Amino acid sequence: MKELDFINILKNSLDDSSLLGDDCAYLKDLGIFITQDTLVEDVHFTMYTTSAYNLGRKAVSVNLSDLAAALSKPVYISVSLSVPNTIKDSFVSELYRGINDVCKEYNIKVTGGDITGSEKIVISVCAIGKKISKYISSRSNARKGDYILATGSFGASSAGLYALQNFLYADDFLINSQINPRPRIKEGLILADAINSDIAVMDTSDGLIDALYKIALASRHSIEIDINKVNVDNKLVNFSDVNKLDYKNFVKWGGEDFELIVAVPENIYLNLDENIFRPIGRVLNKDISPCVIVKDNDKTEKITKDIFEKYTYNHFKDKL
Amino acid sequence: MKELDFINILKNSLDDSSLLGDDCAYLKDLGIFITQDTLVEDVHFTMYTTSAYNLGRKAVSVNLSDLAAALSKPVYISVSLSVPNTIKDSFVSELYRGINDVCKEYNIKVTGGDITGSEKIVISVCAIGKKISKYISSRSNARKGDYILATGSFGASSAGLYALQNFLYADDFLINSQINPRPRIKEGLILADAINSDIAVMDTSDGLIDALYKIALASRHSIEIDINKVNVDNKLVNFSDVNKLDYKNFVKWGGEDFELIVAVPENIYLNLDENIFRPIGRVLNKDISPCVIVKDNDKTEKITKDIFEKYTYNHFKDKL
Repeated sequence: MKELDFINILKNSLDDSSLLGDDCAYLKDLGIFITQDTLVEDVHFTMYTTSAYNLGRKAVSVNLSDLAAALSKPVYISVSLSVPNTIKDSFVSELYRGINDVCKEYNIKVTGGDITGSEKIVISVCAIGKKISKYISSRSNARKGDYILATGSFGASSAGLYALQNFLYADDFLINSQINPRPRIKEGLILADAINSDIAVMDTSDGLIDALYKIALASRHSIEIDINKVNVDNKLVNFSDVNKLDYKNFVKWGGEDFELIVAVPENIYLNLDENIFRPIGRVLNKDISPCVIVKDNDKTEKITKDIFEKYTYNHFKDKL
Repeated sequence: MKELDFINILKNSLDDSSLLGDDCAYLKDLGIFITQDTLVEDVHFTMYTTSAYNLGRKAVSVNLSDLAAALSKPVYISVSLSVPNTIKDSFVSELYRGINDVCKEYNIKVTGGDITGSEKIVISVCAIGKKISKYISSRSNARKGDYILATGSFGASSAGLYALQNFLYADDFLINSQINPRPRIKEGLILADAINSDIAVMDTSDGLIDALYKIALASRHSIEIDINKVNVDNKLVNFSDVNKLDYKNFVKWGGEDFELIVAVPENIYLNLDENIFRPIGRVLNKDISPCVIVKDNDKTEKITKDIFEKYTYNHFKDKL
């Protein structure tokens, strides 16, 4: 099942699907955003390549990344843990030490933790963030002429995963990007403070092109970026060179960088720090079949629905 | 790992564990209760004995039962679904039809649904309820002389499960109690309206004795009940007779009835409808090692920590 098929089933099954569409739902009457993400052993992670501590951290961080894209301040998380009955107490305490450390960093309270048996480890975290800005961030808000901005650097996390899966040497920066990603909470709050209209933001949990294409699709505007303006760490380039890989594939299609992709009008762009929010492209015309155009010097790649569905992260394909 | 060990690990691992202790956490600044429960295939259910539709219903209902015990009005749920990649679209749409039907009944909105791959089906639901009463329900609030009240009837759900597991004939009432339990939302709201002080309430997701013992433990008061005052449906007695089983074992130790156990002072008890909240016992003295005393005509059974831990629902024991 493709993600878009799943969304269609939901929309057909629910009498009220008005809250679906972005990674967070905004609950207006409560002034909060809510999101829930689940990590499944041997689908999203394997205990061969991470630790209970980092798993706890990541299970929280992937949810905080969604709250960051909603420009909200995380305040509470709820954790549901399923583990085999052979698991050691120390696994659970290390996992919760990781959860606690991330929560402490952002002043988040844990509302509860239930535990059940299961064959594989499953961690489902539900996170709540407070609304900070009076404006809303939603994929559908991109408008013609908006600047496309990106935080951090791209491709490191998927290169780290590639190294772990293939027993290759890689710098700690690449490995840590994969097993202990940092959510862009601070950057989300900077944006919340800087905007004077609704904008489009998405995190790159499923990759750079994925975020761009989903913003294009939801807003029905095509997007053009210059791949050479996307920030890439030298450690990714070195790793790719040594292993005879094209680093741009990690940059474009690799998931789990948990950076923010932002589409804002010029007046907001001009007020933001270019070292934090780097311009990588622009929003083009309105389009009922929107695409993402990736320029690379004199080459141009046009990513349409077919190409997107072929290459993007598949929620049912084992990732590890 | 025993549930109480798990709670201890959490308390030792988290800098702030003040919100743990009841099945729902009360988030005072937001005026809401939050709870999260997960159903795992072959631990909490098997697809041999339920349908996708009833599974969707139950995944929501078990969470609503926790909100009922918090005397809150459910308003939102978030659903995280993990399924094998061979699953049919119709499974997902039937599951969501069940989710939708429960939500429609109680006027609840679905905030989001994510889907990931996994070997076994896992459904994790996070539910949010609004605070209705200015008083709080917590296990720790039982006081000497309080009346112990119980909604509905007991033992039907575990008898239904026993029938399904052993291919025995059982009345639909028993089977439906297991595969499509009804949360006591209405009864929780009646209580919220009737109380004039903080009270103790717990749902019987893990059984009658479990709820009584946990209230006893959290409040540090022993509790005495008369098992013959506990409401039992004739269909359970018939089923037990036919199969040469003791129906009182289902009543005492069987899980998933999702009834409410309430400890309230006399003045509140007198204002409640005895047909909805049946008196089954009283709260005894304060006790640092509290127990549950079960009277059965001239016999008295004293349930202490050892007996409780031997017989109660184990989160790591396969239930199906």
